[in-house]
Amino acid sequence: MKIGIIGSGQLGYMMINTMRRYPIEFYVIDDNRGPSSEIADKFYDVSEYKEFVDACDYVTYEFEHISSEILHYADRQGKLRPSLKAVELKKDRSLEKKFLKDHNFPIADYEYAETYKDAFNMAKSFHKAVIKSCMGGYDGKNQYYINPDTEYENHPDMPYVIEEFIDYDYEASIIAVRDEKGKFFNFEPSFNYNQNGILIYNISPVKNTLEMIDIAKRLMVSLDYIGVMGIEYYVKDENVIINEYAPRVHNTGHHTLTGSSISQFEEHILAVSGMDAVRPDLFVPSGIVNIIGTGIDGKISRILELGKTNIYWYHKNEVRRKRKMGHVNVYGDTYAEIEEKIKNIMGILYGEDLEKFI
Amino acid sequence: MKIGIIGSGQLGYMMINTMRRYPIEFYVIDDNRGPSSEIADKFYDVSEYKEFVDACDYVTYEFEHISSEILHYADRQGKLRPSLKAVELKKDRSLEKKFLKDHNFPIADYEYAETYKDAFNMAKSFHKAVIKSCMGGYDGKNQYYINPDTEYENHPDMPYVIEEFIDYDYEASIIAVRDEKGKFFNFEPSFNYNQNGILIYNISPVKNTLEMIDIAKRLMVSLDYIGVMGIEYYVKDENVIINEYAPRVHNTGHHTLTGSSISQFEEHILAVSGMDAVRPDLFVPSGIVNIIGTGIDGKISRILELGKTNIYWYHKNEVRRKRKMGHVNVYGDTYAEIEEKIKNIMGILYGEDLEKFI
Repeated sequence: MKIGIIGSGQLGYMMINTMRRYPIEFYVIDDNRGPSSEIADKFYDVSEYKEFVDACDYVTYEFEHISSEILHYADRQGKLRPSLKAVELKKDRSLEKKFLKDHNFPIADYEYAETYKDAFNMAKSFHKAVIKSCMGGYDGKNQYYINPDTEYENHPDMPYVIEEFIDYDYEASIIAVRDEKGKFFNFEPSFNYNQNGILIYNISPVKNTLEMIDIAKRLMVSLDYIGVMGIEYYVKDENVIINEYAPRVHNTGHHTLTGSSISQFEEHILAVSGMDAVRPDLFVPSGIVNIIGTGIDGKISRILELGKTNIYWYHKNEVRRKRKMGHVNVYGDTYAEIEEKIKNIMGILYGEDLEKFI
Repeated sequence: MKIGIIGSGQLGYMMINTMRRYPIEFYVIDDNRGPSSEIADKFYDVSEYKEFVDACDYVTYEFEHISSEILHYADRQGKLRPSLKAVELKKDRSLEKKFLKDHNFPIADYEYAETYKDAFNMAKSFHKAVIKSCMGGYDGKNQYYINPDTEYENHPDMPYVIEEFIDYDYEASIIAVRDEKGKFFNFEPSFNYNQNGILIYNISPVKNTLEMIDIAKRLMVSLDYIGVMGIEYYVKDENVIINEYAPRVHNTGHHTLTGSSISQFEEHILAVSGMDAVRPDLFVPSGIVNIIGTGIDGKISRILELGKTNIYWYHKNEVRRKRKMGHVNVYGDTYAEIEEKIKNIMGILYGEDLEKFI
């Protein structure tokens, strides 16, 4: 069997590595040669997208900001998984929000604007709000937090959504999988700690997950979804609100590589290639610390010596500020034990100065 | 860092796959292109062994029947791990047995003979015995079971060891690791079921392991060993006897890929590349069924549907009788649950007729 992956980043890299143990060949397409281009059975430039799709039995993606041409062509050939709709909604935040609202999923109040000035004025009507560009923003790019004291500043005109700012207690997320037969399984949701809009660390499991699981199940059914999905939630007074979904494996699901019977990467490839998704068992609580904007030369042994740690390095061509270079998995018998290890790992990676790297 | 692996079989394949997550390049050398030649960063023919060794920071092996030239050259460059001695003893069963006896490890009584006829006569003096060729035999090749009724048959003259036949209760094995600093860790030993000299399935953990662990620790120290070692034991009335050791990752350690915090493959590469071995934690009892002499087309979904199963396919170029094509990992809360699953997997793979495949 031949599986095509659109995008050559670390998510595809981990898909290929964890699924090499199946009788599958992996073809990768991208407009630049990211980490997974080096381990793919074949690499295609985007200009060769028809040959790429034609050569594959199934086509999936590890990144949602992809040329529509490839997606549409793969969809027309009946090979695209997850569905075209699931990824098209992600090309514009306002479409995603409208879909979620129309289907009665819990989201923050929001508005839509076509200029930054309109967006700013609408934000003011919300007391506190976040302005996010409809297109292209992730990891906190093109996002502006507006409170009653915020003065107007110029930003480029483009479509924006304006969301009521939720002063949430914490962010959580779920990784779930649905296969061709409609079988649904979820991993234990995680608690996520973000800074500057970037995931710094997370720990799974988190409490009060019934609603998170129910939302995941309903959302995947409503999109007739095949594959792994990540959904980010805000939790406030034990109420769950969807921040956004990702129609792919997700950075907050890397903990599934340690302490689970199967990882999100394996589940995704099983599901998109017509095989059966598998019930994932959680053997032990686990979490991750992202390695952002720094190398790990000389740090590997210090991290391993902590015990109950695993290192994942993405083999990117250079270290850059804000760039996810890898992550460290950690597990432990208790939440407190994992938190302590995360603190130690953060110290080894960033010293006292995380802000310098993110 | 660049690690060289001598041998391109499934053991090297799993080493590379599981350690792709470290900043390491993997070079492979072999006289034929086995599975790992396809995923190595660079593949060398044996005639290029000097270039291979010179290009690597460390050199290890996944197979002990290797040309001494490569081993000696890598050793002279100070790059060979595990040590030359550990693998040289494996080139001749009589050397291995002498070493173990001289160092007071528990082994079955044995003799040495240079012709098959001498071997046969010595075997007769043991009541029941096994004759094994000193060189080149594995997976039950060139092994002859002799009992008081056995009549003489001609077999080629070559050096043999003649071992007292141990009517053991069961076979067990341990996978252990020792790093450069002398740190020692062991995985939980497993119960192994063999037929026709080939491992069919195993389950870990097994009972009464203190002596197995103690032997592993002492043996690795006595060889000044770096890397993972597998040791096969016979257990008779709770007494432990060494059958043989393997100076490498081992077929009976594949269960460590499921339900453990880290696998034998990762431990081996950590240790041989000068990093710290890591304490492995067992999250849940696990085992394997070897896939021998058969493909898995059409069987994957049936195996996955059993639940608590993982499939490992080695990507060998063709299916042959007796050939290890892959394995299925299985885990469960109890020994009985795992045994039941193993029975089901065996049924899917072999029907009622295992002997046809092995």
